[in-house]
Amino acid sequence: MTRIAVDAMGGDYAPGEIVKGAVWAAHDYNVPIELVGQVDKIQKILDEIAKKGIRSNRGGYFVKKIKVDLSKLDIKITQADEIIEMGEAPGVAIRKKKNASIVLAVNAVAKGSSDAVVAAGSTGAAMAASLFGLGRLRGIERPAIAATLPTMKEPVILIDAGANSSCTPEMLMQFATMGSTFVKSVYNRENPRIGVLNIGEEEEKGNQLVKDTYKHLKENTMGLKFIGNIEGKELFQGDVDVVVCEGFVGNVALKTIEGSSMMLFKLIQQEFRSDLISKIVGLLAKPFMKRIYKRINYEEFGGALLLGVKGITVISHGRSSSYAIKNAVRVAKEAVESGVNKKIAELIK
Amino acid sequence: MTRIAVDAMGGDYAPGEIVKGAVWAAHDYNVPIELVGQVDKIQKILDEIAKKGIRSNRGGYFVKKIKVDLSKLDIKITQADEIIEMGEAPGVAIRKKKNASIVLAVNAVAKGSSDAVVAAGSTGAAMAASLFGLGRLRGIERPAIAATLPTMKEPVILIDAGANSSCTPEMLMQFATMGSTFVKSVYNRENPRIGVLNIGEEEEKGNQLVKDTYKHLKENTMGLKFIGNIEGKELFQGDVDVVVCEGFVGNVALKTIEGSSMMLFKLIQQEFRSDLISKIVGLLAKPFMKRIYKRINYEEFGGALLLGVKGITVISHGRSSSYAIKNAVRVAKEAVESGVNKKIAELIK
Repeated sequence: MTRIAVDAMGGDYAPGEIVKGAVWAAHDYNVPIELVGQVDKIQKILDEIAKKGIRSNRGGYFVKKIKVDLSKLDIKITQADEIIEMGEAPGVAIRKKKNASIVLAVNAVAKGSSDAVVAAGSTGAAMAASLFGLGRLRGIERPAIAATLPTMKEPVILIDAGANSSCTPEMLMQFATMGSTFVKSVYNRENPRIGVLNIGEEEEKGNQLVKDTYKHLKENTMGLKFIGNIEGKELFQGDVDVVVCEGFVGNVALKTIEGSSMMLFKLIQQEFRSDLISKIVGLLAKPFMKRIYKRINYEEFGGALLLGVKGITVISHGRSSSYAIKNAVRVAKEAVESGVNKKIAELIK
Repeated sequence: MTRIAVDAMGGDYAPGEIVKGAVWAAHDYNVPIELVGQVDKIQKILDEIAKKGIRSNRGGYFVKKIKVDLSKLDIKITQADEIIEMGEAPGVAIRKKKNASIVLAVNAVAKGSSDAVVAAGSTGAAMAASLFGLGRLRGIERPAIAATLPTMKEPVILIDAGANSSCTPEMLMQFATMGSTFVKSVYNRENPRIGVLNIGEEEEKGNQLVKDTYKHLKENTMGLKFIGNIEGKELFQGDVDVVVCEGFVGNVALKTIEGSSMMLFKLIQQEFRSDLISKIVGLLAKPFMKRIYKRINYEEFGGALLLGVKGITVISHGRSSSYAIKNAVRVAKEAVESGVNKKIAELIK
């Protein structure tokens, strides 16, 4: 049965929210877990869960209290003496701190005691540890981050969302292949539509990278269904399944979306607090806002997948709550069970 | 007195909404206007305005009806036989169609009959016509688009928002200088804080372009107040005045923000239409939503400025309504009166 290794020490709210999220996932999805980190700290949180259950929050809203019988869950703890902090240079850190939680979590997959990793700490460290510990899939030049974004219809995959600042057209072609395979195997969508993130629709628009990628995709003989350039405003209409871009651009887009959505929700909250009447209307509108928030909240998607390594690494938001981690474990489990890596390897060879 | 030339034929709703917006601006701000386009079509709309007034919409909401006495307004019409369409290659089009509305509107500024141009048609054509017809400011390698974005506090300027797909650090330095001068002279903000749009806060993050730009800005002796790298999510906190980036990245960011905000508003509308109760709550919440929409609606900002040419060109959204054009004329007028170009020339020399 698929076991998920969770870096218990990574993330702004580690280890508390991470351990809680992992236990919650074990409870909800009946998935075995390997918690990697400082045993004493992890044990303390497990004791608390055993006594009090998990108080579940979602996007700042209290949802419910979950009672957990730990004796019925398959939870393993692996000691890790070190932690890689957010500011550290990833390449150096993973070589120096061989007993860091993220390194040992990845090693668990490399050794086969777990099948996937969930990591909410330094993205750079998770990528470096995965690349170093798991190795690249054959034919993949560079792994890429596949982020899931909400749209008016089904979610869209943005790849690369930040693993590679600078890319070549060949890399973007590989991202397209990986993204397409991911959508096919995990979301069960036939013939995923692939677009290039660009600043105009016409073939001759944009910088050299996207122009060359356009040509490669148009002429591809791998069966990739290319539908042309996608502008930022079309990203959310749900008429494309995979959008490829350079990591720098993808990461800026991802964080800009997060920032502008957060601003909008904050402005709505402000408006609904301005006087008594607004407070009443705000109270009435709250259930609607919660439903919308649920649809666009990144916590629902759990995390982004690092595609292109021999294993599954789910990279979660640094601010992940237990709810986000629970969903990240679900994403990891689904990815393992879909056999996405085997399918990528078959397509690329 | 400042006269604003308006390309009456450019934009998805041209000439109707464009002419109405220009007349509305003449009425509201007492600013002389030069409408450039097909005289018969323009005259027809003016006749309609004289009879029926202007029905004002803002972001799809009907706002009010404005009565206009055209005899009291200073509105000049200049005939232009040709129109540059959205799909045309800008460089070729402005050379071939010497009597295109955008070309003649820019010429009006070059000849001195007007002081600034407002253009809602092809951005490429507006840029090419401005560069060709007005020329670059001395010391400016490439003009750039300065877009105004809403934040939790005061608006921020994103430069370049799409004029130059590929940039050098030297160009980004000039963008910083122009953006800073713009914020100082038009918004009257002392010591504008300048940031580099990046995928992390640390100096060593990002691609070579932003790393080099970071260094240049850090060591600048022009009095630019550099505050470091800005991530997409921080863009909206209002703690930075000018954010510089390559045109490709800026344009993706701009359109992604537009797309995700539009999706959010559509989701809210959907939720408030799902059943009778939701419709009632939606009706109660409508005034609050309208206020928020007003704060983030790009129409409020009227358009982006093309900085770096010897003249003022305001580039408006292709989907500009009369309300957006009215605000674009205001932006153009304020830019002319602020003397931003003279101040840029002084700083750069």
